[in-house]
Amino acid sequence: MKPLNIGMVGYGFMGRTHSNGYCQANHFFDLEYKPVLKAVCARNKDKAQSFADQWGYESVETDWRELIKRDDIDAIDVCTPNNLHKEISIAAAEAGKMVLCEKPLAMNTADGEEMCQAVEKAGVANMVWYNYRRVPAVTLAKQLIDEGRLGRIFHYRANFLQDWTINADVPQGGAATWRLDAEAAGSGVTGDLLAHCIDTAIWLNGSISDVSAMTETFVKERTHAETGEKKPVKIDDACLFHCHFDNGSLGLFESTRYARGHKALYTFEINGENASIRWDLHDLHRLEYFDYSDDSIVRGWRSVHISDGDMPYMGNWWVPGLNIGYEHTFIHQVADFLKSLETGDPIEPSFRSALETQRVCDAVLASADERAWKNV
Amino acid sequence: MKPLNIGMVGYGFMGRTHSNGYCQANHFFDLEYKPVLKAVCARNKDKAQSFADQWGYESVETDWRELIKRDDIDAIDVCTPNNLHKEISIAAAEAGKMVLCEKPLAMNTADGEEMCQAVEKAGVANMVWYNYRRVPAVTLAKQLIDEGRLGRIFHYRANFLQDWTINADVPQGGAATWRLDAEAAGSGVTGDLLAHCIDTAIWLNGSISDVSAMTETFVKERTHAETGEKKPVKIDDACLFHCHFDNGSLGLFESTRYARGHKALYTFEINGENASIRWDLHDLHRLEYFDYSDDSIVRGWRSVHISDGDMPYMGNWWVPGLNIGYEHTFIHQVADFLKSLETGDPIEPSFRSALETQRVCDAVLASADERAWKNV
Amino acid sequence: MKPLNIGMVGYGFMGRTHSNGYCQANHFFDLEYKPVLKAVCARNKDKAQSFADQWGYESVETDWRELIKRDDIDAIDVCTPNNLHKEISIAAAEAGKMVLCEKPLAMNTADGEEMCQAVEKAGVANMVWYNYRRVPAVTLAKQLIDEGRLGRIFHYRANFLQDWTINADVPQGGAATWRLDAEAAGSGVTGDLLAHCIDTAIWLNGSISDVSAMTETFVKERTHAETGEKKPVKIDDACLFHCHFDNGSLGLFESTRYARGHKALYTFEINGENASIRWDLHDLHRLEYFDYSDDSIVRGWRSVHISDGDMPYMGNWWVPGLNIGYEHTFIHQVADFLKSLETGDPIEPSFRSALETQRVCDAVLASADERAWKNV
Amino acid sequence: MKPLNIGMVGYGFMGRTHSNGYCQANHFFDLEYKPVLKAVCARNKDKAQSFADQWGYESVETDWRELIKRDDIDAIDVCTPNNLHKEISIAAAEAGKMVLCEKPLAMNTADGEEMCQAVEKAGVANMVWYNYRRVPAVTLAKQLIDEGRLGRIFHYRANFLQDWTINADVPQGGAATWRLDAEAAGSGVTGDLLAHCIDTAIWLNGSISDVSAMTETFVKERTHAETGEKKPVKIDDACLFHCHFDNGSLGLFESTRYARGHKALYTFEINGENASIRWDLHDLHRLEYFDYSDDSIVRGWRSVHISDGDMPYMGNWWVPGLNIGYEHTFIHQVADFLKSLETGDPIEPSFRSALETQRVCDAVLASADERAWKNV
Repeated sequence: MKPLNIGMVGYGFMGRTHSNGYCQANHFFDLEYKPVLKAVCARNKDKAQSFADQWGYESVETDWRELIKRDDIDAIDVCTPNNLHKEISIAAAEAGKMVLCEKPLAMNTADGEEMCQAVEKAGVANMVWYNYRRVPAVTLAKQLIDEGRLGRIFHYRANFLQDWTINADVPQGGAATWRLDAEAAGSGVTGDLLAHCIDTAIWLNGSISDVSAMTETFVKERTHAETGEKKPVKIDDACLFHCHFDNGSLGLFESTRYARGHKALYTFEINGENASIRWDLHDLHRLEYFDYSDDSIVRGWRSVHISDGDMPYMGNWWVPGLNIGYEHTFIHQVADFLKSLETGDPIEPSFRSALETQRVCDAVLASADERAWKNV
Repeated sequence: MKPLNIGMVGYGFMGRTHSNGYCQANHFFDLEYKPVLKAVCARNKDKAQSFADQWGYESVETDWRELIKRDDIDAIDVCTPNNLHKEISIAAAEAGKMVLCEKPLAMNTADGEEMCQAVEKAGVANMVWYNYRRVPAVTLAKQLIDEGRLGRIFHYRANFLQDWTINADVPQGGAATWRLDAEAAGSGVTGDLLAHCIDTAIWLNGSISDVSAMTETFVKERTHAETGEKKPVKIDDACLFHCHFDNGSLGLFESTRYARGHKALYTFEINGENASIRWDLHDLHRLEYFDYSDDSIVRGWRSVHISDGDMPYMGNWWVPGLNIGYEHTFIHQVADFLKSLETGDPIEPSFRSALETQRVCDAVLASADERAWKNV
Repeated sequence: MKPLNIGMVGYGFMGRTHSNGYCQANHFFDLEYKPVLKAVCARNKDKAQSFADQWGYESVETDWRELIKRDDIDAIDVCTPNNLHKEISIAAAEAGKMVLCEKPLAMNTADGEEMCQAVEKAGVANMVWYNYRRVPAVTLAKQLIDEGRLGRIFHYRANFLQDWTINADVPQGGAATWRLDAEAAGSGVTGDLLAHCIDTAIWLNGSISDVSAMTETFVKERTHAETGEKKPVKIDDACLFHCHFDNGSLGLFESTRYARGHKALYTFEINGENASIRWDLHDLHRLEYFDYSDDSIVRGWRSVHISDGDMPYMGNWWVPGLNIGYEHTFIHQVADFLKSLETGDPIEPSFRSALETQRVCDAVLASADERAWKNV
Repeated sequence: MKPLNIGMVGYGFMGRTHSNGYCQANHFFDLEYKPVLKAVCARNKDKAQSFADQWGYESVETDWRELIKRDDIDAIDVCTPNNLHKEISIAAAEAGKMVLCEKPLAMNTADGEEMCQAVEKAGVANMVWYNYRRVPAVTLAKQLIDEGRLGRIFHYRANFLQDWTINADVPQGGAATWRLDAEAAGSGVTGDLLAHCIDTAIWLNGSISDVSAMTETFVKERTHAETGEKKPVKIDDACLFHCHFDNGSLGLFESTRYARGHKALYTFEINGENASIRWDLHDLHRLEYFDYSDDSIVRGWRSVHISDGDMPYMGNWWVPGLNIGYEHTFIHQVADFLKSLETGDPIEPSFRSALETQRVCDAVLASADERAWKNV
């Protein structure tokens, strides 16, 4: 068993999902490499230590520059707010570390391009945590599309609906709500939620050529969690766009944090000439599939329960009928990353792949801003 | 167009569904015969007249014996409470009228046998209104089974769940609640609801050999609607049984009027070696179908929306995607009955076929009473 | 009972749904007026006669101008392709007839405005058959919104998905496929399907201020059914748009005839501060409702089965748990129209109300054409 | 952190779920005790070692008697086939070890009684892995019932449907298929699947008084995996029973491995006077809830997505909208067990509680055998 020494920056929600991935991958997948939790880094030492104790990190750091300097670290995992992705990733790459960066890659395309160049110049392994590609049902969707089962694609639609910021008392900024603070997050639902939808869409349906978008900020001012000051909200609360894909199909995307009744409802549907597929995160263990070649009298949407051993990743888990959940997407990504170190095949999505999503996000925000179609 | 002169006895819920069937059948089906609403009969002349006005009956009667005597009546439709089915049906048959009798056929098997003998001796057309056979999804289920798609059958389960008698203030007896009065209804959920389940089951899966049942009456006393007197409730509020079918499969049946949250949830499921089917009345426009021969990675329950022209009865209605409802089962039964007059093929279920359901009901009630298995 | 003498122009799909409405309304609703099927008009006399025989029309006409001249006709029902709505409606109004026109009102806003002026000048009763307002679940949605249960509205989304024109061999033009012929239909999915979505949206959520749209024609040429000639397809196969409503909420609309697996899937969802609602035509007997004021541990989307007597229109039908279907929307519209003659309250949607939908459709098509936002 | 030294007997499916529970509990729950994986025991040393390597067990044993003798073991986890539960559990108790035994507790009630006496006499902590009590939705169901939300209970129904033994080539006996071998398993679906349903039912709805059951063995002979010999199948392939609960409600239970289309569909529904609940394992993250006290026009089954922090166990996991899965039930049970060591409150279900389920299973099998009602 070869150790892979991890240095984690950040200890929030994503710090937990990634740490769990490192702990669990080798319990379920046969792999040469095994992650070792060498160090977690956070400005607040007590919180870092508490996190380290809970997950078994061997040490803590309070300055990510120190972490990067350490010789006993192979890979830097960037779990910070978005505004720190660039600086840490580039420094890590320059130090010769592998870089595993949370999504979205960057605050904007220009920053993302610099990051890509840094990892490519350094020749270090790099990936971005667009974890939803590794929901088994989504991976299966990719397989079905690659097998040509859908035929010519006409429509792709996706949305990511939440409702947690309807209350105007939710603050912006700080550890729990930095996603509402444009300085830390760059954008609102576009970078946070639509980026996931776009990453999946490009993976499943190819590149997006042009977009026409609208955004809205429903609550105009919110108190900042750290300063207590009431400040204008500069992120997008909701973003909708339609687009053309290079393959001629039409795309429709929507994201909001004001869809009462939906907690994290990421859905997509793809309509092809011969078959259609749909999926949603609230029932992530199912893939809906419609096959026009079925006998007409028994033709209908199939609810495929993704739990059998011949379905992606599922042979490594339990027995047919028993579900896995959200956290497993990260375990799969860790397992695939470790496998990529064995085989030498690059892991996807790389920084470069994730940059394409960034480019669409930038076009979307510009389109909304200028009320005009934008090429990607 | 050949007229078929209808004499209807009763004007309640079933009087309405049948009358609607007579009015609508020729709008949607090409038929030689056309029902003519000659007369409706009820003891209360005003109510009979009001019903006649609403549906276009040409005349009213207050004594069913007079109705049967009339030369201008071809068919007697028996929509009374169960305790009158026998007398009216036998008299009608003896007068040479066709007899269309509401379900259940009779108060018990012995009565039903007499009724069968009467219609058979008279040689008159006869049928019982087990309308659920003619839900298009259910008719399609029959077709799929007859095509052999399911293979060897292992399990049949059905239930019919309601919740309208939970309130102890619901009375028994009278026009609206005679179904709670053992003298008028014979039994409770067994004859009212399970009879439907049993009729469908025998049609789809063959005869039932033996049964083991339990019944319960949750509310022990109810006021009688006509007398105002508090009397013991003698009908079964709930009935559950398991059974063997002649084909070796196991049956499981349940019915109750105390299943909070279910208004008229008739469901069945049949599990075969190669395929399974399920259906429920609350979503009567869908048939769920599972086919084991599908590719394993896209195998799942199919929700077949029964609205296309190649599905049973649906070519006579609207366009794909548009639903029909409950009342259409009666229109279909009328259309099939009229067609049977053209072709000379007997309509199903006949009195004789319905007697088999009666026999199972009797065995079920006896089994519950004696706490023992009973052969049918 | 006061007769209302109907003169129907056309005998296609809508001719059937309306005729059924006329036959059925008085069976289920207590009304002073009762439709009398005086005449049906079609160029082909045999087809007109056959239709008259099936539905009980007393006479046939082959020239709608003759029909309008008849003194024994009170109301003209316009069930022709869209390109004839204007001429017939205006002539009927000028002849003092009530005008009941199929949707969309007109080929464009200018034509619609002329039609409005004609009926208003003549002072005749007028309505447009946007039947989906009278699905009981949709009527209930309106009631819930009017009661203020949703609070501030953030999002409205609707789509209407079909798949019947994917096959490139489907022709354009002619009796069955005039909806694909721009000369007869004016537009494609925009006027045919989105018009329904827009009518409902305005009814439920108020006026639309501006739109940004895209359209696509996937199959560029189709044979014309009458001439046999291969001609460019000029209608929109798909149309997507986002918009602002006057109340500040964001709208998202999509319609297509290329969504494999969906036959007539009209859906809408409306997200308010306090509650959300969603509905779809494939399960038209249910309304999904989410109420944030529920106890948090048992809060969830409620699937409300619309079949009880206290729900809109349902008291006139059967008993709880038993579904009605698509055709009933037209019966309700007839019943409401007849009632409006009793009360003197105008029926909705009037020509004038329907014109607002026309205006949105025109803006949508212009926006798609010019790739720019358009005010309505 | 106090160590709890685990000695595991067995390394199959349940060995994996329990090991995962030991590894994960302290990552998500704040606990004084922490499991230490001291040793795993299996007759085949290579397999034991391989399992130890995968999960991090410090040592292996090939004789469970040696394991029990070890001073460095605090708790024995019994994950063997059912026929070894008794001997190992009693020996472990006599050695003063805590005993964590897989379900069903024993081969029959008599054996189970001996096991209870052993752990009670030894005064050692003991529990049985009826893991489904700790699906958050099921735990919430218990909470809702205990709060009195359902009122008087009328019906309880449950089933556990699988389809993995339809193929007659599936062998009996051996490591993978000992559940088909009566010598190793005791019974078929009764002990394997119905035991789960019964445990939950008693927990939620109280004791069962009497039962009437039927069983069936559809495939009469199967090859033995170890001997290659064709032998009669002595386990029950399917088992159905109805029963009375002490609270007066009626129970209906079914289990089979021949329900084509269902992999592991454990469902239950409970109908009370005021509210009803239903749940199924295939969508284990949802609880369906119907509350009669809702306004009638918006009353319906609620699909409660169990993912918020105020729902049982969910505050320890991710964020609203994100699912956990099957394996988490074992993590919860480990966490609760560790907590019970802190608080001194006994963990449930204890051996004694699990014996009640055993007693029902025995009555069920006797009832089926004798075709008669049996008291429990």
